[in-house]
Amino acid sequence: MKATKRIYLDYAAATPIVPRVEAAMRPFFSDQFANPSSLYGEGRAARLALDDARKLVARVLGARMGEVTFTAGGTEAINLAIQGVMKSYPQGQVLAVVTEHQAVLACVKQYDYDFLTVKKNGKVKLDELEYKITDQTVLICVAAVNSELGTIQPLGDVAELIKKVGADRKKRGIDMPIYLFSDASAAAGHVSLQVSRTGVDVMALNGGKIYGPKQSGALYVRAGIKLEPTIYGGGQERGLRSGTESLVQAVGFVAALELADKLRPAEEKRHYELRKGLISQLEAIKGFSLNNPQHSLPGIVNFSLEGASGEDLVYKLDAAGLAVATGAACAATNDEPSHVLLGIGLTPEQANSSLRVSFGRSTTAQDLTDFSAALKSTIHV
Amino acid sequence: MKATKRIYLDYAAATPIVPRVEAAMRPFFSDQFANPSSLYGEGRAARLALDDARKLVARVLGARMGEVTFTAGGTEAINLAIQGVMKSYPQGQVLAVVTEHQAVLACVKQYDYDFLTVKKNGKVKLDELEYKITDQTVLICVAAVNSELGTIQPLGDVAELIKKVGADRKKRGIDMPIYLFSDASAAAGHVSLQVSRTGVDVMALNGGKIYGPKQSGALYVRAGIKLEPTIYGGGQERGLRSGTESLVQAVGFVAALELADKLRPAEEKRHYELRKGLISQLEAIKGFSLNNPQHSLPGIVNFSLEGASGEDLVYKLDAAGLAVATGAACAATNDEPSHVLLGIGLTPEQANSSLRVSFGRSTTAQDLTDFSAALKSTIHV
Repeated sequence: MKATKRIYLDYAAATPIVPRVEAAMRPFFSDQFANPSSLYGEGRAARLALDDARKLVARVLGARMGEVTFTAGGTEAINLAIQGVMKSYPQGQVLAVVTEHQAVLACVKQYDYDFLTVKKNGKVKLDELEYKITDQTVLICVAAVNSELGTIQPLGDVAELIKKVGADRKKRGIDMPIYLFSDASAAAGHVSLQVSRTGVDVMALNGGKIYGPKQSGALYVRAGIKLEPTIYGGGQERGLRSGTESLVQAVGFVAALELADKLRPAEEKRHYELRKGLISQLEAIKGFSLNNPQHSLPGIVNFSLEGASGEDLVYKLDAAGLAVATGAACAATNDEPSHVLLGIGLTPEQANSSLRVSFGRSTTAQDLTDFSAALKSTIHV
Repeated sequence: MKATKRIYLDYAAATPIVPRVEAAMRPFFSDQFANPSSLYGEGRAARLALDDARKLVARVLGARMGEVTFTAGGTEAINLAIQGVMKSYPQGQVLAVVTEHQAVLACVKQYDYDFLTVKKNGKVKLDELEYKITDQTVLICVAAVNSELGTIQPLGDVAELIKKVGADRKKRGIDMPIYLFSDASAAAGHVSLQVSRTGVDVMALNGGKIYGPKQSGALYVRAGIKLEPTIYGGGQERGLRSGTESLVQAVGFVAALELADKLRPAEEKRHYELRKGLISQLEAIKGFSLNNPQHSLPGIVNFSLEGASGEDLVYKLDAAGLAVATGAACAATNDEPSHVLLGIGLTPEQANSSLRVSFGRSTTAQDLTDFSAALKSTIHV
């Protein structure tokens, strides 16, 4: 079966820039292009526009303007968070959930690190976390949402535990702080990012996953936390991200973040209905098993098909007009089974037989019906 | 005197994105938005488009495709170059010209470093360089063009010296390599970037100074040179710059670079004529002295006015409708005199009495006449 139009179902890997975001970016292409560090009117106006953008990010997060640093993407924000804290505390240790994004894993491996395993439902084990924290532990990395499974981590519980550890250290006269870093790249537009609710100390955001420009993003850093920069230079972004600021990227990121936050409740409800329909169709397939845990993001459906090759299926579905993923795009080019699926206890064979379907704003029930039909005929060929 | 329209004369600080560049970027906003690491058709097409962009950069540089890494801006490229080499050779020492850009200076200070002074004309002293190179020296940083003065460094001579040192080390059985890194942010569109001609080993480029997108750029790394990444993650850009690639930025950068290279001969000739006219008008002002050396870029006119405050003049000229700079924009927000002007032997007073006028593609003789007139009436008020 050949679909008459292409159906894109990999919104967890990349999203288009939507018209409203592009419209917000446009004035900064060739009209208001001045360097925000310049002293004349155009430069001062650029500085004000950048601060306005920063205020709007802060509002979505329930944070203060000075707690928001613009970065060139999610991976860069993650690097600034982890390298920034770890370079400030060279004696410190970092703990990261084993199912974190490649960027988190690659970063923590530069330092004294340990991994935290997860339950079958992908969630961090609080007892293991408590056990693994030593007086050297300065940073705990727990993604708000996992981009392959949609698992929502209990950040509030982790934050509470960390606060307890911090209070105990104070009592014992130990100076080493302990911070919760959360990669929220896959969370924006899907769960609340209010920092008071989640209790995070440092949080990374990615414009390229929320219908904003790729290589745009931001890092929230709670006031009072000292970070060492990863990129040195003119001292822009209060010394944390040197280099001439891009208003095109910053304003595009903010427009995307605000829109994602606004559309969130309605989209989640819509995705929930779409998910129900899709799963009921997939359940009819022999050897189907759902990999997502309960209460994960509705817009990510990750499943294995016993005996199938996920990569083969991706190519065959592609030929039939459908774009879906096996594993995360970032790791797609290596042949290893998804570390996330292995992390929740799947065998390499099960992991390699998986597909990830992720919904976007324009995904319809018909798209998913077409996907199910194409998948069935692909398998039965 | 109030100018009837704003006259922008700070193209060395920031350039607008030109229509041809914007047109090149447009298809990648919402049409071809897929993640280049995705396996399906859209992803593979994005990968091909990225490689095409990379080939075009390589062509302008006379380099190979595999020697080009896309970065999010010039400062990031500079950081990747310096941190990348220095992290690979922890015992190594880095030498940098004292008039380099803040990004270079801030980076080298993270390592064992020493500065190279310059002649009155801003050029590196080859005898001092030779004297300061030890068996630990692994990296020499010499910008192709200085962004405040337009000084063109004799990269060929530096490269030759470095080659001689390398050959001597080989003979003596010393393993430490020695590389020439050149920040070419202010050079693109003004001098040849052919790596075989300049002899550089590593070279940073910045899209935001050549009518391309801010936070776009590239790093040339001669084949065989091992760099440690600054940003860890999914392993994009052959492991040197992790994070989902932005085709919008890469394609915009390339379009800007190609156009700048194509327009270069005609623009330099035009700027030379504009410069002659401007200087003849400025010479009539009492206390005027030109800070640029001979044979510097024609499009940058840097001068001091005895007893004046450059910052005051910037604000007064701004009120009269003109945008010019004192010092580089990156350092404009701190009050210290330009390290570049101090570097060529100016006193702090002379440095603080300086203005930098930099021409762009739309600068006309009339703009410069208006500037001279505004400056004269500003001073005589």
